[in-house]
Amino acid sequence: MRTYTKVQKTGSVGRSIDVTSFKNYEELCSAIECMFGLEGLLNDPRGSGWKFVYVDYGNVVLLVGDDPWEEFVGCVGCIRILSTTEVWQMSEEGMKLLNSAAMQGINGTMSEGGRL
Amino acid sequence: MRTYTKVQKTGSVGRSIDVTSFKNYEELCSAIECMFGLEGLLNDPRGSGWKFVYVDYGNVVLLVGDDPWEEFVGCVGCIRILSTTEVWQMSEEGMKLLNSAAMQGINGTMSEGGRL
Repeated sequence: MRTYTKVQKTGSVGRSIDVTSFKNYEELCSAIECMFGLEGLLNDPRGSGWKFVYVDYGNVVLLVGDDPWEEFVGCVGCIRILSTTEVWQMSEEGMKLLNSAAMQGINGTMSEGGRL
Repeated sequence: MRTYTKVQKTGSVGRSIDVTSFKNYEELCSAIECMFGLEGLLNDPRGSGWKFVYVDYGNVVLLVGDDPWEEFVGCVGCIRILSTTEVWQMSEEGMKLLNSAAMQGINGTMSEGGRL
């Protein structure tokens, strides 16, 4: 069982950090920006193209910074730095999943209707 | 099931080591530097060009030395010594992956549009 949290960015060697060693989001963010050479880019209010997210134990991808710090520390599974393309890809895959579920639903309803 | 851990470096014969026989990162690092004739180069604070990484059981490439030693011993799948070129290649492949995903998306959107 890992106590450290993996930090991943496509195309870079991943890192492991102890989130409990940081006091707040600002400290965490600065340390991770420094590790990946992204100084000032993860928390850029103008939007730098990078999305700073985490995956919780329920396997849900969430934006880092929304939750109260202590809650984040308790539920973070791994941290990821997503590029614009990956965010866009995520949305595309989500749409495909929804569309295929919708199609299955329609077909399911039709065949069920046929049985009546 | 292997109990020993493979250590690989492109262009060299790989080695197998028992990570549990070492007490800490310093010991492991020295032994591996010695095996591959890289004395003083894997842990060079000035950056020697070599990246000392491992692949964990989740298939993620991570920097050796971030995790507490006992956790590293428990989750290391294999160890790799990457050259600057390989690190650069990894980042290039990451970019290609992202770009091809973006292109597929654009084409997908276009062909879907065509079907309308």
